[in-house]
Amino acid sequence: MTRTAPEILARASALTDAALDRALPREDDAPAEVHRAMRYSVFSGGKRLRPALAIAAVEALGHPAERALPSACAVELVHAFSLIHDDLPAMDDDDLRRGRPTNHKVFGEATAILAGDALCVVAFEVLVRDTPDRAVAADLALELARASGTRGMIGGQILDLAAERRAPDAETVDRIHRLKTAALIRAACELPALAVRAAADAAARLREYGELLGRAFQIADDVLDETSTPAEMGKGTQKDQSRGKMTYPAAVGLERSRAAAQEFAEAAVAVVRPIDRAGELATLARFTVERTR
Amino acid sequence: MTRTAPEILARASALTDAALDRALPREDDAPAEVHRAMRYSVFSGGKRLRPALAIAAVEALGHPAERALPSACAVELVHAFSLIHDDLPAMDDDDLRRGRPTNHKVFGEATAILAGDALCVVAFEVLVRDTPDRAVAADLALELARASGTRGMIGGQILDLAAERRAPDAETVDRIHRLKTAALIRAACELPALAVRAAADAAARLREYGELLGRAFQIADDVLDETSTPAEMGKGTQKDQSRGKMTYPAAVGLERSRAAAQEFAEAAVAVVRPIDRAGELATLARFTVERTR
Repeated sequence: MTRTAPEILARASALTDAALDRALPREDDAPAEVHRAMRYSVFSGGKRLRPALAIAAVEALGHPAERALPSACAVELVHAFSLIHDDLPAMDDDDLRRGRPTNHKVFGEATAILAGDALCVVAFEVLVRDTPDRAVAADLALELARASGTRGMIGGQILDLAAERRAPDAETVDRIHRLKTAALIRAACELPALAVRAAADAAARLREYGELLGRAFQIADDVLDETSTPAEMGKGTQKDQSRGKMTYPAAVGLERSRAAAQEFAEAAVAVVRPIDRAGELATLARFTVERTR
Repeated sequence: MTRTAPEILARASALTDAALDRALPREDDAPAEVHRAMRYSVFSGGKRLRPALAIAAVEALGHPAERALPSACAVELVHAFSLIHDDLPAMDDDDLRRGRPTNHKVFGEATAILAGDALCVVAFEVLVRDTPDRAVAADLALELARASGTRGMIGGQILDLAAERRAPDAETVDRIHRLKTAALIRAACELPALAVRAAADAAARLREYGELLGRAFQIADDVLDETSTPAEMGKGTQKDQSRGKMTYPAAVGLERSRAAAQEFAEAAVAVVRPIDRAGELATLARFTVERTR
């Protein structure tokens, strides 16, 4: 059975959404306001690319999808937390995300800040609680922290803000992309390998695949921001330029950006080729640069 | 050797500050801006009450202070993260903390939000990385998450905001205090017990001690906000009332608040009396309600 990228993503969404629904407090559990805000952003029609990568990684290693779910949920929760804080007025000041008002527009800034904080905490909680082998649980939590912190995602957000309105250069953009985006996507691919105690070579390949795919993904995202409409993207577009964001297209132009994204995606495919069941990883890598939203 | 509370706190500060300095990225490590912001708030002259409790707890169980340091650092980092976010304009909008401008006043809101996020993440990183027994490390991370999340500290912050300008009642105030303040202070006492795999009875006593002391501490804090000057406190005072915060004094008056704080502190002392070396825990409990800042 060969699945298409939309089929892979739909299956991963179904598995992950059920797991996230079990993991998160109910909307009517006190304090209800923050739980509503958390669920609003977690269940907002995201593509679930990171969970799909986690599941494809663990299946490529010959393990059932369920073994990837704690990692898939944890990474998606960190992703959701980062989007809420990114959209705040003091940060990117976005009103629209995935076709809906952003978290702070619905729940107010204070609740949005706390909902983001709580999603960060619950990511670690779910990961550690739902990983039966306690030593593995500790290793996963440590890797998630490294991928999310100032040497990973948060560090990339800081660099991204600091680079606004500065003359773009490809090296700086790549550094921002590696941290802001690739660190967490890499974790989505690597954590499941750690969870099943994969051989070192396979784990290293999945890590490298995630890094390359993460870079491809963010370049494609920069291109989409410049070339698509808000209706297609479900969020404001052409915003990078008006904000003076340092993007890949700003540094090297649209055509070279598209080519670079393709190259990174193909390099990602190549690095996991020695893994037996890597077909869906290849499909997802190519989808990343061919998607239209 | 019987130490006074200031001596216990000074010793705990020295041990913890050295451990935190090792744990946090250098100020000149890239991205330097966020690392400076993190260190600004972590090293800002806090009392280090939570680390002192963690150390006193582990020493009461007959183990060296060093065994408490991962827990002490992690809890203090979560505390620092929560203060940065609490002080933001969208939250309590405070300009002054411990006699210095608040984080966002110095570094701007975006960096302050991200510095808080990063301190939350690094709390888990330090706790897991520096706890040699991997299974114990996982248990500690899970407990820290529970104490910090929506059933703990963050939940209390949400309730605290929701209760503003509502008619105060002692039951609601107590519920806020238990979550907002006592959950993390309880974790400071309980995590070290888990770290040394203490007997269940001792761990339960330390947990209960932390819960009672946390409630005593927050009532004393409410009283101090109403009765002291900004010069004494190093932050704005009489702010609870102007904001319509639901405090213990607002619910039951100053005299009954002072008495309640005393009672909780004495109950905390009583619950750890069966533990051999609980002298410093008793000293800290009484300090909590007798302090003037």
